[in-house]
Amino acid sequence: MDKHTSKAFDEELSNAINLFLKMGEMAAKQVEKAVQALTDVNEQQAEEVIIADNQINQYERELDERVLQLVIKRQPAASDLRLVMAMSKGVVDLERIGDEASKIARMAKDLASQGSAPTGYSEAQHLSNQVRLMIYEALEAFRKFDAEKALNVIQHDSAINREYQSAIRSLMTYIMEDSRYVSRMLSVMWILRALERIGDHAKNIAELVIYTASGTDVKHTSYDEMEKTILNTQSH
Amino acid sequence: MDKHTSKAFDEELSNAINLFLKMGEMAAKQVEKAVQALTDVNEQQAEEVIIADNQINQYERELDERVLQLVIKRQPAASDLRLVMAMSKGVVDLERIGDEASKIARMAKDLASQGSAPTGYSEAQHLSNQVRLMIYEALEAFRKFDAEKALNVIQHDSAINREYQSAIRSLMTYIMEDSRYVSRMLSVMWILRALERIGDHAKNIAELVIYTASGTDVKHTSYDEMEKTILNTQSH
Repeated sequence: MDKHTSKAFDEELSNAINLFLKMGEMAAKQVEKAVQALTDVNEQQAEEVIIADNQINQYERELDERVLQLVIKRQPAASDLRLVMAMSKGVVDLERIGDEASKIARMAKDLASQGSAPTGYSEAQHLSNQVRLMIYEALEAFRKFDAEKALNVIQHDSAINREYQSAIRSLMTYIMEDSRYVSRMLSVMWILRALERIGDHAKNIAELVIYTASGTDVKHTSYDEMEKTILNTQSH
Repeated sequence: MDKHTSKAFDEELSNAINLFLKMGEMAAKQVEKAVQALTDVNEQQAEEVIIADNQINQYERELDERVLQLVIKRQPAASDLRLVMAMSKGVVDLERIGDEASKIARMAKDLASQGSAPTGYSEAQHLSNQVRLMIYEALEAFRKFDAEKALNVIQHDSAINREYQSAIRSLMTYIMEDSRYVSRMLSVMWILRALERIGDHAKNIAELVIYTASGTDVKHTSYDEMEKTILNTQSH
């Protein structure tokens, strides 16, 4: 590749990465606003989150097109191609995070109109804080191609899953003692589940970072194996 | 591209497509077995589904690698690249279908050991039949690059969502009348939700087919718009 082409490629690649990060930040923001709409019982804000999801979908389309053009025009080498493919997959996770935020907003809206659930809001707030942190960490790992940082995100996900389980159990106990608000309580449970899924998507992005940085697909492998993979890559 | 290269590309592409279809059929089979394990209260079969998920994950890794090699070595033209990228995204949906099947199996196992839920099994069976049909139709549309068939799948998804909503409502009514089995009933609800998600993944694959066939990203557009897109493509 001559210098001119290579420079153009670098520029387009870095533009695409920036769009990816921007989209990710917006997705995290949507999660924050959706849960805020829930805890503030703010129907108006819930509606705004639902509408703003369009913007994220637009970002996805734009990024898909850029990735395609990059591969067609620049024919990247293996390691760059790995990154480009990772981005093409990661964008799906970001879009799904936006979808989940939008679902949370829809349930927040329902709860605002039918009357609040008797419990579960602090659990939602707590999980929301944690998964947003995971998204930011995953994006940061992506920005720096930092596999170790990505590994932190993956570790974080197990902790969130445990908290999610325990929150669900406590809401179930509530329903068993007072079954008047089953429908509202179920809405809160769907919200908790949506947040847990958001954590999964952040984890997927972290796994893509490890794949890009190490060339090894670490999905479905244990934490120990991932760590070994990363250490091996670094010692080369 | 000379004839030799082009022939090699066609062969590798068709091999990759076959692997994609094989993976998809296995994912549908996993859904069937998982729900069967639930309705037959068969812990052993549930366990088998959980273990077999590894095979799907292996397929995903293999397909990702093939796609990467195809792009690196063959530098496909725009239309072929679109197909290859669609496959790379679709494989994520197939893997998630496998994940959902595995989650269903895990809940079937729990229900088998803690005692069955008092209701909801026929709803699960019914939804399972429908989403498996959607998967097969989506795969068929993919195999033939048939955008019209893909559009059927998308239409099918709305019907499934309505049925899912009505099943959930009837289970909620049950809990309100008899709250002794909240935990078991919730497991059945998670299973219904997993099935609904599986329908979403089949829909994603159908949307990728339309994207590949028409060059237009139809995600987040209305059914009417999709239909117009397909008709426009055919008249060219």
